[in-house]
Amino acid sequence: MNSESKTISTMRRNAVEIFYAAIKAVQPGAAIKQHCKFDGKTLFIGHRSYHLARYKNLYVLGAGKATAPMAAAIEDMIDEKITGGIITVKFDHVADLKHINLIEAGHPIPDENGIRGSSAILNLAKNLEKDDLILCLISGGGSALMPFPYDGLTLEDKQDTIKILLSCGATIHEINTIRKHISKIKGGRLAQAVYPATLVTLILSDVVGDDLDVIASGPTVPDSSSFYDCKNIFHRYNIIDKIPKNILNHIESGILGEIDETPKPHDPVFDRTYNLIIGSNVESLMSAKEKAKNLGYNVLLLSSMIEGETRFIAQVHGAIAREIIKTGNPLPLPACILSGGETTVTITGNGLGGRNQEFALSASIDISGKKNIVMLSGGTDGTDGPTDAAGAFSDTFTLKRAEEIGLDPYRFLANNDSYHFFQKLGDLFITGPTNTNVMDLRIVLVT
Amino acid sequence: MNSESKTISTMRRNAVEIFYAAIKAVQPGAAIKQHCKFDGKTLFIGHRSYHLARYKNLYVLGAGKATAPMAAAIEDMIDEKITGGIITVKFDHVADLKHINLIEAGHPIPDENGIRGSSAILNLAKNLEKDDLILCLISGGGSALMPFPYDGLTLEDKQDTIKILLSCGATIHEINTIRKHISKIKGGRLAQAVYPATLVTLILSDVVGDDLDVIASGPTVPDSSSFYDCKNIFHRYNIIDKIPKNILNHIESGILGEIDETPKPHDPVFDRTYNLIIGSNVESLMSAKEKAKNLGYNVLLLSSMIEGETRFIAQVHGAIAREIIKTGNPLPLPACILSGGETTVTITGNGLGGRNQEFALSASIDISGKKNIVMLSGGTDGTDGPTDAAGAFSDTFTLKRAEEIGLDPYRFLANNDSYHFFQKLGDLFITGPTNTNVMDLRIVLVT
Repeated sequence: MNSESKTISTMRRNAVEIFYAAIKAVQPGAAIKQHCKFDGKTLFIGHRSYHLARYKNLYVLGAGKATAPMAAAIEDMIDEKITGGIITVKFDHVADLKHINLIEAGHPIPDENGIRGSSAILNLAKNLEKDDLILCLISGGGSALMPFPYDGLTLEDKQDTIKILLSCGATIHEINTIRKHISKIKGGRLAQAVYPATLVTLILSDVVGDDLDVIASGPTVPDSSSFYDCKNIFHRYNIIDKIPKNILNHIESGILGEIDETPKPHDPVFDRTYNLIIGSNVESLMSAKEKAKNLGYNVLLLSSMIEGETRFIAQVHGAIAREIIKTGNPLPLPACILSGGETTVTITGNGLGGRNQEFALSASIDISGKKNIVMLSGGTDGTDGPTDAAGAFSDTFTLKRAEEIGLDPYRFLANNDSYHFFQKLGDLFITGPTNTNVMDLRIVLVT
Repeated sequence: MNSESKTISTMRRNAVEIFYAAIKAVQPGAAIKQHCKFDGKTLFIGHRSYHLARYKNLYVLGAGKATAPMAAAIEDMIDEKITGGIITVKFDHVADLKHINLIEAGHPIPDENGIRGSSAILNLAKNLEKDDLILCLISGGGSALMPFPYDGLTLEDKQDTIKILLSCGATIHEINTIRKHISKIKGGRLAQAVYPATLVTLILSDVVGDDLDVIASGPTVPDSSSFYDCKNIFHRYNIIDKIPKNILNHIESGILGEIDETPKPHDPVFDRTYNLIIGSNVESLMSAKEKAKNLGYNVLLLSSMIEGETRFIAQVHGAIAREIIKTGNPLPLPACILSGGETTVTITGNGLGGRNQEFALSASIDISGKKNIVMLSGGTDGTDGPTDAAGAFSDTFTLKRAEEIGLDPYRFLANNDSYHFFQKLGDLFITGPTNTNVMDLRIVLVT
């Protein structure tokens, strides 16, 4: 092994260490314990405190792929203080719980189990009193796992409507406006349901920007949109004839005031609510930053909100790495650039891959031969597209090594076949399930 | 005017000041005077010095859109020390010169005037001696303005070949390999022609990364590609049947050794050559950085090598600005992010705009309502696409103001009609011609 590849292999090991430090910080159980402390009497959550003796009952509710380990950490902390509760998780995403009922349901397509879980949660909510305390747990998948159409609407009505909105090019913000107005849980409706109990929501965010009203469509936060906005959206895309009659009638009733609006920012419903993000992409990046500093790198946390077509995002990361080598901007060697968020891949080929692997493949072209650069892009949940890899590595010599074994990177990129490119090079990054999800991380090391 | 718009208008003024500081540093005349000094006897260029008494003749050669003011600055400095010379410029890009002949020629399509200029340069080169000194001036457009097909080839052969390469998807690197092997000037051939004279090349770079062998196809630098590579490129894209016979025969002769290869890195031709970049995107960014610091901003020079589809590049800049507001990463308020390079726009609509205006339009969506952000993207030559604007401004309130006058930013973006969007808002950035060109600058201010 020559000294160049020794440097590269050290950097590659560093990238892995940084990645694992990043996801350790956002393990659901660790995140709960980081943000919640219990001294036997008082539960400290974020900057608030709850004296448990003041509450008659303490229920744990929620939904999301990571809520089982979150609930287990809560049980571990306050155990018999818990009166009971219900959480809905994705099939097989379970944990042993003593006090909290766990319902497994369909994801990403909502199913009857999800409805059953939501129904149980709303039933429990109905009988709550002012001296009850609710801990609500939300993580990625919470929206699909907690479906409950408003009275008179069916899950099918709802799904048909979302399908029409998706195909007409409506923005995610517009789709959420509709979602919130046809649900009994989203858009602050869950907060409305548990009122007058005290409600604390602990959130593991898998959404770019961590907007509370976007994560799981904001069941416990105020909604600033209206039934009137819903109608405008149908008009804007000229789809009013396609929307199910049930849905249209529901929206009209809302406009006429026959159905309550979703709760707005100054609604008394929110007087005793508190929403706290306990884990997110930016928190994982902060841990990555700390780890990279300890490994001796100058570190720049670029942004946790990177979105857009993957190959162009890779080009920007490549351009920054090359600038570091050329002029020492934006920071001097040895340098570590960190970014997070979730990019997209417009598929034109029929290969196998994911956005992280495509990032690595695209970047490898931009950094080829520039010494010394190592990049690692990976999904924090340990999966990337329909593959068994979390992501892939690329470095100064990726293209050279590919050429040596007759692989044409441009051809693999055009075919969206990053998985097979990196599989042949031995440069896939495989972690297995990580039990958390705060989107993607990209680590760029330059020495 | 409320205090918010006062902040925004101050930031906007700052962005303009930073932009002008950036282009001031790369004015052709200023760049020459920055890198060349004359004390009456010795010409100091970069870190080298030339005692003019040792040289019998001093000629100035070159081509490019900005070479007239470069030549004027040289004349201003060493005046009667100049024996003579020839430069080829784009029509109307002239200056009053005393000792150097100026030829106006076609750009971006080469014409007979360009051939005439190149012919004069090669004729002059033919008779040079070891005790002659050549100052060669190169700037953007130098390639098209200095055409001279190799013996036996016509300008038409050359243009047909490039057209075929462009349409088959060959990379710019591959196209340059062909260009260098069918020219009497590119790929180091000009250095070969002036040998054994001493050759100093002063370059104003308009190329991402400032690679010497890419700027004007590297007339005075070693070429690492070969005739054999040319044939491989024709094979790779399966276009050997389409390439003009003259060109194919020429390449074959080269492979057979009947025509000299382009000069390679250790060729004695380069023993007395010196190439110096006197102005480039990164130099303009360095000046911008200095100016922004003086205005009180924390500054990050992200990269001078940003390429890729404009709207995704804008998204990244927006994500960084939002991260600054959210977590103080990658740098604290008040912050200035600078980047340069040249992005592309895949045109799908039939509106009017340019890559800088499209950047501003796309970014305005990502930063809408986030306080306080101002972005300015502009072409350093004062033009952006087929418009009279250099670029445009976007800020926290761009979308709100657009909405107030009934403009839908998504519709303008889809139609690539950024010019009319910003024209209606009064947010075009119009500078007129700046007499220089080091690609684009993007200035992001966050307070």
